[in-house]
Parts: sequence; structure tokens; C-alpha cells
Amino acid sequence: MKLSPWYVTGLVEGEGTFAVSFNKRPKLRVGIETRPSFSVSLSERDLDLLKALQDFFGCGAIRYSRSDRTYKYEVRSVPDLVRKIVPHFEKYPLAGAKGKDFQKFAQIVRWVHAQHHLNPGYLREIIELAYSMNPSGQRRYAKDDLLRLLGEMKG
Amino acid sequence: MKLSPWYVTGLVEGEGTFAVSFNKRPKLRVGIETRPSFSVSLSERDLDLLKALQDFFGCGAIRYSRSDRTYKYEVRSVPDLVRKIVPHFEKYPLAGAKGKDFQKFAQIVRWVHAQHHLNPGYLREIIELAYSMNPSGQRRYAKDDLLRLLGEMKG
Repeated sequence: MKLSPWYVTGLVEGEGTFAVSFNKRPKLRVGIETRPSFSVSLSERDLDLLKALQDFFGCGAIRYSRSDRTYKYEVRSVPDLVRKIVPHFEKYPLAGAKGKDFQKFAQIVRWVHAQHHLNPGYLREIIELAYSMNPSGQRRYAKDDLLRLLGEMKG
Repeated sequence: MKLSPWYVTGLVEGEGTFAVSFNKRPKLRVGIETRPSFSVSLSERDLDLLKALQDFFGCGAIRYSRSDRTYKYEVRSVPDLVRKIVPHFEKYPLAGAKGKDFQKFAQIVRWVHAQHHLNPGYLREIIELAYSMNPSGQRRYAKDDLLRLLGEMKG
């Protein structure tokens, strides 16, 4: 099954998620780990379609998500996000509201790839940008929590 | 905003619905009305995208659905379904499980367009086919209910 690039963009408009999550990591100088991810969740009857999507992008993994009983195709590798995922959606752009989230995501992914998320000033901007995206699920931390922690680490 | 045809197919793979519903209509000889419909539901932030979809197909209407707080682009006209909707998905086919539903839908729409749904033998086949599709919501009647009614009308 070979997918058209525009078909992939249309499917992602409805079912895809561009997300940036954060974890507290006391061992990092900035105290916070930045984790961007791209994913598409579908029901079991579309497992073959997820495999075709994985072939299309040439990266990522498929796993079963017990919480919502779906299968999820997911890319977390920053080099893969920068080299394979982001360029696709720049060449075949999302037409709907998800396009705005994608633009913020692309900016964050490039900053993370350039290691800017290890710099407190950039990380503050990354956190602000990430929290202005349409939330894709429950956030682990409130934005102010992260910014406060970042302030403490800098001091 | 001009949409690529493959983008439209990809979006519909995730967010579209091909449905056939039935209503009891004692005034009809067969006692049952057959109503096929094609729809795409999106949140308010994607209202412009629904308008672009309406332009793309050149038919259908957009309405607010209070029950799930979404906007719905919907085509119910059988001539529009036969001439505009079905041909699109035959030229740019759905790659996932929804493709199987579409094939049944296309068959039913063509039968309805040819007035076969007014013939009890065909209507029985239409009901069987419609109830073998992935349910898009709660069905008003159980299949056996409709088939029983159809048997009574024939006698």
C-alpha cells in the first residue's frame, strides 16, 4: 500500500498530533527535559494503514495504547522529526487549524535539534510556545510550574 | 483555500462518515425510507476548512451539531452523492478500513438513485448491506425490526 503525500497530510489533519511535553530532570543544568513527538492514532482495524504511514516516513514506531484502545504511530527521534517529519508538512502543508500548531512544533523541533533547549533563555521561549499549542491531552505540569523551576535552576 | 483531491481523501479517512439511515414511512409502499448521507465533522476552529470542502465538492451544506459541539459538512442529495461524492472516492480511493464502508455506500447510493429502494427485494438487500457497515452512531431501529416491517408491507 503506497500512500500519496497529500493523502498523508489530509489524514494527519484529522488524526495526527504534534506535541511537546516536558519532564523534570534534576540532573540537567536547566532542570527540564523537552520531548517533542509526532503521532497518529487509529483503531485496530486501521493497523495496516499505520504500517503504511511508517513506511511512508521511513521512521517511527507503532504501539498499542491501552488507555484509549487505539494503535499509535509515533516519532520521537529529534533527527527523524527534523529530517523527515517537518519537511513533509512544509512541502505538503496542513490546510486547517492544525497547521498553526505544526508551525510552532517545527520551530521547537529545530531549536531542540540545535541544542537550544539546554539554554535557559531559549527553554523559556520553548515552554511559552509549547503551551500556546492546542493541548493534545492532559499536561503533566502547569506552565508556571515549569517557568518557576527554570528560574530556580538559573539562580 | 484550494484543496488537493488526495488531501480530501486523507481527511475523510479520519473524519468522514458514510452512513445509511432508515425511517418508517407508512405512506410509502415499502413502508421504509432510505437516507444515505456523507458527512465530515470538525471543531469550530476548522469551520474554514469545512467551507473549503464544500467548495471542493460543489454541493452539500454546513450546520452546527449541538449534540457534539462540532460543525458538520453534509451531503444528502442522492444526485449529488452519485455524481460528485462517489466518483471522487473511486478516483482517489480511501486506503484504510473506511474504504470497505465506502464500497457498500456507493452500491446503495446507486441503487437508491435507480429507485431500487422502492422495491421490497432490493430494499431487503440495502438494509442487509447498510447494517454490515461500521456503525457511525446509534441506529434508530434494529435490523430485524426493519426486515419484519418490510415483510408485513409485502404481504
